[in-house]
Amino acid sequence: MRLLAVFPHPDDEIGVCGTLAKHVMRGDAARILWLTRGELASQFGQMSPEEVARIREGHGRTVAQMIGAEAQFLDFADSSLTGGREEALAIAQVMAAWKPDVVFTWNPYDVHPDHRAAYWATLSALKFCRIPKLVGQPHRKPVRLLHYYRSDIPRPAVYVDVGEEGQAVAEQVFSFYRDFYQWEYSLEAFRANRSRLGAEASVKFAERFQAEAPLALPYLG
Amino acid sequence: MRLLAVFPHPDDEIGVCGTLAKHVMRGDAARILWLTRGELASQFGQMSPEEVARIREGHGRTVAQMIGAEAQFLDFADSSLTGGREEALAIAQVMAAWKPDVVFTWNPYDVHPDHRAAYWATLSALKFCRIPKLVGQPHRKPVRLLHYYRSDIPRPAVYVDVGEEGQAVAEQVFSFYRDFYQWEYSLEAFRANRSRLGAEASVKFAERFQAEAPLALPYLG
Amino acid sequence: MRLLAVFPHPDDEIGVCGTLAKHVMRGDAARILWLTRGELASQFGQMSPEEVARIREGHGRTVAQMIGAEAQFLDFADSSLTGGREEALAIAQVMAAWKPDVVFTWNPYDVHPDHRAAYWATLSALKFCRIPKLVGQPHRKPVRLLHYYRSDIPRPAVYVDVGEEGQAVAEQVFSFYRDFYQWEYSLEAFRANRSRLGAEASVKFAERFQAEAPLALPYLG
Amino acid sequence: MRLLAVFPHPDDEIGVCGTLAKHVMRGDAARILWLTRGELASQFGQMSPEEVARIREGHGRTVAQMIGAEAQFLDFADSSLTGGREEALAIAQVMAAWKPDVVFTWNPYDVHPDHRAAYWATLSALKFCRIPKLVGQPHRKPVRLLHYYRSDIPRPAVYVDVGEEGQAVAEQVFSFYRDFYQWEYSLEAFRANRSRLGAEASVKFAERFQAEAPLALPYLG
Amino acid sequence: MRLLAVFPHPDDEIGVCGTLAKHVMRGDAARILWLTRGELASQFGQMSPEEVARIREGHGRTVAQMIGAEAQFLDFADSSLTGGREEALAIAQVMAAWKPDVVFTWNPYDVHPDHRAAYWATLSALKFCRIPKLVGQPHRKPVRLLHYYRSDIPRPAVYVDVGEEGQAVAEQVFSFYRDFYQWEYSLEAFRANRSRLGAEASVKFAERFQAEAPLALPYLG
Amino acid sequence: MRLLAVFPHPDDEIGVCGTLAKHVMRGDAARILWLTRGELASQFGQMSPEEVARIREGHGRTVAQMIGAEAQFLDFADSSLTGGREEALAIAQVMAAWKPDVVFTWNPYDVHPDHRAAYWATLSALKFCRIPKLVGQPHRKPVRLLHYYRSDIPRPAVYVDVGEEGQAVAEQVFSFYRDFYQWEYSLEAFRANRSRLGAEASVKFAERFQAEAPLALPYLG
Repeated sequence: MRLLAVFPHPDDEIGVCGTLAKHVMRGDAARILWLTRGELASQFGQMSPEEVARIREGHGRTVAQMIGAEAQFLDFADSSLTGGREEALAIAQVMAAWKPDVVFTWNPYDVHPDHRAAYWATLSALKFCRIPKLVGQPHRKPVRLLHYYRSDIPRPAVYVDVGEEGQAVAEQVFSFYRDFYQWEYSLEAFRANRSRLGAEASVKFAERFQAEAPLALPYLG
Repeated sequence: MRLLAVFPHPDDEIGVCGTLAKHVMRGDAARILWLTRGELASQFGQMSPEEVARIREGHGRTVAQMIGAEAQFLDFADSSLTGGREEALAIAQVMAAWKPDVVFTWNPYDVHPDHRAAYWATLSALKFCRIPKLVGQPHRKPVRLLHYYRSDIPRPAVYVDVGEEGQAVAEQVFSFYRDFYQWEYSLEAFRANRSRLGAEASVKFAERFQAEAPLALPYLG
Repeated sequence: MRLLAVFPHPDDEIGVCGTLAKHVMRGDAARILWLTRGELASQFGQMSPEEVARIREGHGRTVAQMIGAEAQFLDFADSSLTGGREEALAIAQVMAAWKPDVVFTWNPYDVHPDHRAAYWATLSALKFCRIPKLVGQPHRKPVRLLHYYRSDIPRPAVYVDVGEEGQAVAEQVFSFYRDFYQWEYSLEAFRANRSRLGAEASVKFAERFQAEAPLALPYLG
Repeated sequence: MRLLAVFPHPDDEIGVCGTLAKHVMRGDAARILWLTRGELASQFGQMSPEEVARIREGHGRTVAQMIGAEAQFLDFADSSLTGGREEALAIAQVMAAWKPDVVFTWNPYDVHPDHRAAYWATLSALKFCRIPKLVGQPHRKPVRLLHYYRSDIPRPAVYVDVGEEGQAVAEQVFSFYRDFYQWEYSLEAFRANRSRLGAEASVKFAERFQAEAPLALPYLG
Repeated sequence: MRLLAVFPHPDDEIGVCGTLAKHVMRGDAARILWLTRGELASQFGQMSPEEVARIREGHGRTVAQMIGAEAQFLDFADSSLTGGREEALAIAQVMAAWKPDVVFTWNPYDVHPDHRAAYWATLSALKFCRIPKLVGQPHRKPVRLLHYYRSDIPRPAVYVDVGEEGQAVAEQVFSFYRDFYQWEYSLEAFRANRSRLGAEASVKFAERFQAEAPLALPYLG
Repeated sequence: MRLLAVFPHPDDEIGVCGTLAKHVMRGDAARILWLTRGELASQFGQMSPEEVARIREGHGRTVAQMIGAEAQFLDFADSSLTGGREEALAIAQVMAAWKPDVVFTWNPYDVHPDHRAAYWATLSALKFCRIPKLVGQPHRKPVRLLHYYRSDIPRPAVYVDVGEEGQAVAEQVFSFYRDFYQWEYSLEAFRANRSRLGAEASVKFAERFQAEAPLALPYLG
């Protein structure tokens, strides 16, 4: 099974690390595709965008290693995504070549326009990757799109039980970013939030997404 | 794992047969608890309620055998259920003794008052079975309640992938009743409907329920 | 086509008068079935319940005449309905005998317990009227249940274009009650509200109900 | 302003203590009406129901004092509520005499049948308290009903900012019960949960209810 | 009455053929407006986009004839729609000239960006066609927009009873495309799906759309 | 407290005038930011866009004075908004400089593309105004976004009690525009609609918005 995560900026991937890591542990392939290097991030003060880009690309590569995932960067500009055709084609090329079964991305209503654009471009790419005149050799298998959860989107929620082992990787990733950025949000709060999501679905730790259609359970426990 | 299905009348259980059978096949325990023997059924013409009760109890026991489940009957009267305390206590006694992990029943808005009553009495029983002063030795583990699906209830849908093997048992049960009652609804239509539910959740055949809270997936495929 | 309205008290029927009247005008049959005579109404001061019952039964019969509908009264006690088996059986008997195609009633969440009870008993009656052992000769045709609208019930809204002619009858009924009870709510407000409902559905005047399932339009205008 | 909370068992009131306390602090009147004394509670072992009732009534009175509210007990039996007419009339008598502006109670779908019954009986009481033939001198002012929140009820959520001062009382009440019952749920978890509710609505601590209709804000901050 | 369907590609119109045909049969006017000729379609192998465009325009014209509708093509490029101003103005010009009462199009969340763009451009056109400075002679009558159904859009569903006669045309259109493209999806499955939609709304065959506002029924059957 | 309203055209602000005015009366600061001057408005006949722009800018400034708000105009072109980066940056600059606590705008699904664009650009601006590399000195405080209400957006409704005094200003603004444009919609209808919104939330007059998250009430009345 092949899982692709498409995000605009390094650190957007935190919400899916446990799921990716758990799948990698059982032998599945994972890749994270960042559309930009997040070079406009506010936390770097006067540092040049090029230098910020270099550092944040390094972050992404480090995180991918923690998860056991491949890392890939496209060259779009931070805070300039549109969700339009060019971005969709670039993502579709990756899909056509890498052939994912599941794709993760942001939701379509987030406050950051890059996040919303990532959703729409990824959605278009699910179609474009099937059209030979756009991508050459197409990717024809069904691909399921999962996006980060929002309570104002009336689609089925998908809770993934990340287990202790997926949670451990997610905490490692979180702590890596937290240490670097000196976030106020604590590891305890991070864990408590994911434990609460787990409790909602009767497991220890969960990550939550949404899909257009429900997923079937193999068994009820 | 232990699965209990609570229904007022023999043949109400058709929608859960695939799920029960699939669980039984992997070694789980299943029981079907009928609250009445359905003695007012219209299809028996002038036959006495006692005779109808005897035949329909036989139906239930036959179906339970097809599934590999236990069969149990309570002695409430058909079309007289209220969803009240007496019924709840009787179901709670069964729960306290049999200790299910998952309980299935009708939804709370169906047109048949016995169906609605089964839901409310079963819901109450989930509480009563934890109270020693009502049931003696209580059943204290968490129990998940799944009810038949209705589009006008805003709760998460739960799709169970019943697989070819669960579907085969469900078709056997359906055909058994269909032959007896001479239903117009064909096996092909039965299969098509369950195949459509499966397609909604990207599997071959599914049964659909609803729960108060979501269930977590161990993996995404 | 045959339309039956089931309500606990005379004056509950105001919200369906335009629909009934418009159908009667094209030759359909309508009946209003009151479960009680509303003998506890507050507006009659010290008058005995028997006297109030007599007056309010007269109101119902007058209104039925305005609409061109039959009037029928059952003998349940005001503010004592339970929604249980006895009420359901009584309504089912009426249905089995009169054989409606459409049934109207209150919604299941109204503040008045008689209103809620009318819904549940009517819903049960839809099932009971099909069971010979309960009603003798059964009513087997599909019957559609429409209940008064509530925004917190996630079921399809059904707007009926009552036209000028249905509106005229509804206003006559409203004015009849308003004059008797000296309601503060004016005819202008009554008309404005129904005009607003109409505007929501692009017609002049509408009545609004809810159904479990959608109704199909023969044409789009 | 007068606030009445109607619950079946002492300790059900925990979710509304902050709101009641904050209102009492500004001079409003509050009363908690318990329908039973919760004499079947499991945590008392072999103790007689009469003795449990005595102790739990004491709990309620202690909590009411912490809040600055009046305490009142009706004599219904624990785990035997039906939501029917007798209970509704008893609550309506209290409403007619005490004349609340706002009433709090459980939601209508909770697992405990007493909780559901409290909702339905309280809802009926809102109507019955306006009918002189049922309660004598009626309570005719509009009364707003707020029930405990459930995510599967499509009604507007009402968040009350309980402030530090309301939170302090709620924590005192919680700790009182926690110490007595030796609950595993910690004060920290209690506070974290209410802090999270507050965060959802951009305040420090909140209690959450639902109402049939929205409430208007006087200002946006 | 005048019905306009706006779609990006020939064959997108399949879901509205029964409705258009039924209206045409009673004397209403219908037009299908395609924004592109679908020249990137995958099923044509190495054929040049120009040749594909020529063939698919022919398809559209054939289908329009089957329905009794006018056919019109705009010259936008396949898989390049943006939903922006240029497209909206072009559609608005058609609306201003042709003056539809009802407009059909795709929904706003479909996976194909051209489908989503068709929705947004058509929605804008409903406004632009009323502005003389944009379209010259404006179209000022109210126009109702109906889009293809999606379960994750909380708008009223609109079921149109297409009748045997509308269904026959829809099947003719479907079979025409199916034969050409050698789709796996069978005529039986096509019919079964539309029969199921019909069953949901108690008619034989239905097409399903969504609208911002409900439509009123003239009668209940 | 500082309230910013962002709209494409003068007269879009009518729905928020009461809220702004009431806040201004208690000493809060309000500003209305128009993105265009609405120079394509149909009601000005052959008048040049420049002349229309001049007149409508005057309207906006007059209305702002009635409210006691500041007026600001950006120089985008009417009916050409895209919701894209340029517009978002322009609004973000205003936010960074003026530092609002609450921002009002159109909803994201309105028929006019400028209205939708205003929503998306304003949403992006909430993010951009926090990024120094985009706006220089950032605005880092939390900002709440309220948009005009639509029933097909599943977000909490926010009713603001505008009081008699806010209503008076809103009526003054409405009448100003009505007199100028000779609208058919009467002041009585305007008042009735706002009175109905008020009634929904148990106050005299209300304006209704939606927010991503609920707002907490300080007290229940």
